[in-house]
Amino acid sequence: MNNRPIGVFDSGLGGLTMIKKLAEYLPGEDIIYLGDTGRVPYGSRSRETIIKYAKQDAAFLAGFGIKAMVIACNTVCSVALDNLKSGYDMQIFEVVCAPAKAAALASKNGRIGVIGTAATVRSGAYETAIKNINKDLSVFSVPCPLFVPLVEEGWVTGSDEAAHCIAARYLSELKKAEIDTLILGCTHYPLLYDVISETMGKNVLLVDSGAETAKQVAADLKNNNLLNSAGTDGSIRYYVTDSIQGFSNLAALYLESDVNGLVEQITLE
Amino acid sequence: MNNRPIGVFDSGLGGLTMIKKLAEYLPGEDIIYLGDTGRVPYGSRSRETIIKYAKQDAAFLAGFGIKAMVIACNTVCSVALDNLKSGYDMQIFEVVCAPAKAAALASKNGRIGVIGTAATVRSGAYETAIKNINKDLSVFSVPCPLFVPLVEEGWVTGSDEAAHCIAARYLSELKKAEIDTLILGCTHYPLLYDVISETMGKNVLLVDSGAETAKQVAADLKNNNLLNSAGTDGSIRYYVTDSIQGFSNLAALYLESDVNGLVEQITLE
Repeated sequence: MNNRPIGVFDSGLGGLTMIKKLAEYLPGEDIIYLGDTGRVPYGSRSRETIIKYAKQDAAFLAGFGIKAMVIACNTVCSVALDNLKSGYDMQIFEVVCAPAKAAALASKNGRIGVIGTAATVRSGAYETAIKNINKDLSVFSVPCPLFVPLVEEGWVTGSDEAAHCIAARYLSELKKAEIDTLILGCTHYPLLYDVISETMGKNVLLVDSGAETAKQVAADLKNNNLLNSAGTDGSIRYYVTDSIQGFSNLAALYLESDVNGLVEQITLE
Repeated sequence: MNNRPIGVFDSGLGGLTMIKKLAEYLPGEDIIYLGDTGRVPYGSRSRETIIKYAKQDAAFLAGFGIKAMVIACNTVCSVALDNLKSGYDMQIFEVVCAPAKAAALASKNGRIGVIGTAATVRSGAYETAIKNINKDLSVFSVPCPLFVPLVEEGWVTGSDEAAHCIAARYLSELKKAEIDTLILGCTHYPLLYDVISETMGKNVLLVDSGAETAKQVAADLKNNNLLNSAGTDGSIRYYVTDSIQGFSNLAALYLESDVNGLVEQITLE
């Protein structure tokens, strides 16, 4: 059982920021990554459609006999988590609770910001998770739909004028609210770290939801005696629903390593 | 035969800018519109995936016994037109040739710009169409992937700072090239008309690819004696692959009229 792979899925490429962290914390684990690149983005779609797509993603991964599933898509975690949890007898990790806990512990003034897709913010999932930890904390959530296409366009450097212009507009409300902690509630957003950090100022702590979750996955697998016992380096395989080439080029950017020969295109239905 | 409906499809909502024109030019025609809102956008996907989705869209419309099909999606026209034309014995209209002709006729200095999605520009379809009309014309094409999410975010007014910032960056190359005519090669772009026009300056003529095509559809149906002879007002029905509500709200913005009760959600496979 322990030597089975871990399954990870995301609506597209964003989850690769988490894969990088998972591979760092769990170098001995085999990982199977599914990116639904043929139907990305999920964040602007309806609840029903997100649930339908998420169920197909989870079923695909479950077919590999995985020992644990990581939902790297904040939109899916916010909208469809209950629909997935009921269907599988394995540990399912999501990207809401761990960063909510980290933010609740880190905030000194009790004012926490959350940014994410329209669907993530509409769900109120982060707010609920933070209030469950401490109901006195104040949460300010802002959807930032242009951040994902901005990352996919590669306009992400701290000096990028368009990125700053967009960030300034989305984040002005959070600056006014005087938050001291901001959850990056979308796996794409760590790539905009510099832009967001410069806009919010140095006194605001940015919480990377994927990195926090990767830490928790590593700790939980260890605590539950579920680590791979082979003692060799783990492997990573990638499955996508659009072309391999488009994915491979961007994956190299996200992972800072080559994925050639490790990617396969599949159909989800 | 003449009283059969016209089928129109787009990857999402963009094609509604053309529906408005079609209904204006052809008030007696019944129109069936399909927007693949559950899988939009097409413009950033691979050629193979665009062809697969386009075939499913066309097959759905053909099931209504339509007399003509209008492909309102510039990406599909640029990438998958030949794959669709071979399968159907009816007139199929696309959004490349009519605007290419309009631009070729309008340009005085022989320097024409084209903006569109990544897939549209990569295909070179507009350039080929323009060069087929007059091989001496110079064509400058620039992909503008952020324009569609910008429109969907509603940041479209002439005074919008972020929109101007993005437009200035995408269009600087075309300004340097001293074009006098610019094809808006995506059905979303007419909603950014003011921003694009202010960025390019008043001396650059903007050609709306959807409006030009609607004119051609009207002329061709009339010339081929294919106009609806019922003598009553035509109806429009809408089919979408994501939720009805999200579509209806935005459709009201695009069409400046209410579509409640006229929209149905379907599944394409």
